[in-house]
Amino acid sequence: MTPEEFRAAGHELVDWIADYRAGVVGRPVRSEVAPGWVRDALDGAPPEAPESLDDVMRDLRDVVVPGVTQTQSPGYYAWFPSNASLESVLGDMASSGLGALGITWQSAPALTEMEQVVTDWLRELCGLSDDWHGAIHDTASTACLVALLAARERATGLSEARGGLQAEPSPVTVYASSQAHSSVTKGVLLAGFGRDNLRVVPVDPVTYAMDTDVLSRMMAEDVAAGRRPAAVVASLGTTGTTAFDDVPAIVAVARQHGAWVHVDAAMAGSAMLLPEHRALFAGVEEADSYGWNPHKWMGTILDCSLLYVRDVELLIRVFSTNPSYLRSTADGEVTQYKDWGIPLGRRFRAMKLWFHLRLAGAEAIRARLRRDLANAQWLARAAAAEPGWEVCAPVALQTVCLRHLPDGMTDPDTLDTHQQEWAERVNATGRAYVTPAQVEGRWLVRVSIGAEPTELRDVEALWDLCREAAGSIAP
Amino acid sequence: MTPEEFRAAGHELVDWIADYRAGVVGRPVRSEVAPGWVRDALDGAPPEAPESLDDVMRDLRDVVVPGVTQTQSPGYYAWFPSNASLESVLGDMASSGLGALGITWQSAPALTEMEQVVTDWLRELCGLSDDWHGAIHDTASTACLVALLAARERATGLSEARGGLQAEPSPVTVYASSQAHSSVTKGVLLAGFGRDNLRVVPVDPVTYAMDTDVLSRMMAEDVAAGRRPAAVVASLGTTGTTAFDDVPAIVAVARQHGAWVHVDAAMAGSAMLLPEHRALFAGVEEADSYGWNPHKWMGTILDCSLLYVRDVELLIRVFSTNPSYLRSTADGEVTQYKDWGIPLGRRFRAMKLWFHLRLAGAEAIRARLRRDLANAQWLARAAAAEPGWEVCAPVALQTVCLRHLPDGMTDPDTLDTHQQEWAERVNATGRAYVTPAQVEGRWLVRVSIGAEPTELRDVEALWDLCREAAGSIAP
Repeated sequence: MTPEEFRAAGHELVDWIADYRAGVVGRPVRSEVAPGWVRDALDGAPPEAPESLDDVMRDLRDVVVPGVTQTQSPGYYAWFPSNASLESVLGDMASSGLGALGITWQSAPALTEMEQVVTDWLRELCGLSDDWHGAIHDTASTACLVALLAARERATGLSEARGGLQAEPSPVTVYASSQAHSSVTKGVLLAGFGRDNLRVVPVDPVTYAMDTDVLSRMMAEDVAAGRRPAAVVASLGTTGTTAFDDVPAIVAVARQHGAWVHVDAAMAGSAMLLPEHRALFAGVEEADSYGWNPHKWMGTILDCSLLYVRDVELLIRVFSTNPSYLRSTADGEVTQYKDWGIPLGRRFRAMKLWFHLRLAGAEAIRARLRRDLANAQWLARAAAAEPGWEVCAPVALQTVCLRHLPDGMTDPDTLDTHQQEWAERVNATGRAYVTPAQVEGRWLVRVSIGAEPTELRDVEALWDLCREAAGSIAP
Repeated sequence: MTPEEFRAAGHELVDWIADYRAGVVGRPVRSEVAPGWVRDALDGAPPEAPESLDDVMRDLRDVVVPGVTQTQSPGYYAWFPSNASLESVLGDMASSGLGALGITWQSAPALTEMEQVVTDWLRELCGLSDDWHGAIHDTASTACLVALLAARERATGLSEARGGLQAEPSPVTVYASSQAHSSVTKGVLLAGFGRDNLRVVPVDPVTYAMDTDVLSRMMAEDVAAGRRPAAVVASLGTTGTTAFDDVPAIVAVARQHGAWVHVDAAMAGSAMLLPEHRALFAGVEEADSYGWNPHKWMGTILDCSLLYVRDVELLIRVFSTNPSYLRSTADGEVTQYKDWGIPLGRRFRAMKLWFHLRLAGAEAIRARLRRDLANAQWLARAAAAEPGWEVCAPVALQTVCLRHLPDGMTDPDTLDTHQQEWAERVNATGRAYVTPAQVEGRWLVRVSIGAEPTELRDVEALWDLCREAAGSIAP
């Protein structure tokens, strides 16, 4: 394809994107396609001859769009916000158009140095000191694995350079709460610690935050039994209920045993941009690593997950490679992000953060986050005031956890089924999408407010819809 | 930013991309900026108020473009091709504009099912049987780590579900040639095997392919000593010289000990699209995993790395997570790519492959690959016929490894320095970029042909430039 052919096609695609975004409000929020429907529609022999842009765009409209959940819709309250701000889409386009290759500093100095600039900007905007060094990863799962690998190597005195974890004389352990994200367990397993060496710390039954007294006891018992605590993962804003672990208490306990503290604030981290909510992040400055995702609530398009560490020298010792074909004369003076994580090659991901922050400005981003927090408080108050409804977890941020308790329905399992049923009725309307979750054994419905276009009137309409759906189920 | 503001900005950016690509030939191929120059130019306080698109575009032109190596230039012969075909850029734009969230099948059925369609298309185009199941990862480093983790778990009977690698009673080992990519060593270390358990197998001094007799001996010795071979990584198209390991021989040896065979064809895999070159890939069908990167020579924009496995059930056992908030009624019937690798969330990466294959067509892609192979043969013949020049490795594909041997220069270290010097003189002209590499202790210069716009006349001009540069160095 020549640049001129691209120009024509690119203009058509930009118009399509603008039209799609303008028209997203009318579409069913949850994709209603059956398993296999998209595959059947798109399958066939591999294309041998070029097809027309018209044919591709037709499938984009008729198959792909109905085949995705509309995460950019004001009616999207599922999982967590996954905003793809149009400012960041422009940055992503610039990154793609440029086609730069990030393997070493030399292959694209600007790709490396812009990543330093934007991770520093966000560090400053979050009020973190310049002891922290940031890099962009794809997701919080990867960032957590990177932190756990660094912790493993610190605890074992760089065992990877010798016989590996398998040659270690005594077990190395990791701690996280029962409400930590599934990626923590996954990271522990992938890093080779083994499930037997993951201590699942119980949570407070009201706040769902880690019980740090139990953590302290577990760590002491492990040490007494000859095991070595490598890491504690603290969750700020759990997936179930946006619960906040007590990081200062966790840091204090972990320090006694030299364990690494990784703070996972994948969704909630955006709130650190708000000075008035920074108390929720107390203690982060004392941790060893801190991860959060601009690609969630803040809205820099997926995939854009930040991991900050304090001991970058250790990180480099764990992740570095230096083959001859990647060396250059600049090596001693520059940052090589390949040595800060798993992949060698990287996209110019900094560009989407850079476009987003410059074209939107931090003040407008903060205003939007504050709007969402206010909307969540409105919903929480409305539900708390309504007979038969329960706000069943503290509303620390923008996620409201609801249970509907119809008169006379007292059997716990029946109540669990009821929550899933009314959520399904809401979702089946196509006007909104909420996701149920099981928290400490009981089902509730999460309303995660914070899609970019969601205004108070949308949340009011959602609340009507929830009551209508729950009320329509015969007892 | 509203859809209408995006429309205006998007059109401007599309024009910029088309102009940039049309004008890339006039730019210095290697970025010549000094360490810190980009950072100094872009740094400052985080943006509080919105800035204009004009300001951002000015920095894009004046700072970012000179700050990257021009991988899309016809003069780009460094590392390996990193083509960003404009067809795939369109697909990436569609992916960004849609802003879909790939965490489960339910969150974006089309994102999952299109990935099945395009990985199947490429499997068919490469002549692999339908025993293989593919997924898109960011890079070959990640794909290799995923394969090594699967191998680790197969060899240890799923030790992650018990005490982890650290509780294993006897060491588990991995094998790769001395010419394997640096990501193999990195993967072995990150997976916890430890450097002591990586067996670096020597290569044939002429072909640079793994010496499989030594592999066989190493594995037998390890088994005799009570160690357990978990995996052999076979390289097809090594980074240094595009050497091809003997996969059938490796598979035969590995099978005796139940070891997993991962085939890393990150760059060379594109050649499997050419039936007449498929003999180079003999034995792949019998391996356990096979990875290659459409984002290199084939030209589907970074990041787009494919990993195919045969035992997908094992992969899912190693990588699956199933928390309540990610469950849906479709779970039993659909593919959940979150259980096929490290990250939970995924971009709609299939879109760039889908646009690329449909808009370009496989036949045109094959024609371009054949052009590059012919150009490499032309350069190899020209250099072999020229006194004082040596083609110092077999030209299996599109990378030609050159050494200039001036009359009377016989000291090996002086010769090594000379190679680096003439390469530097070529690169300093700005007209081309080649990268030196150390292969089995000696420096050579790699000319990796295959940038999308590189035609024979460009390779002819490069050859003139190489002779001129080498000839200009006083003995």
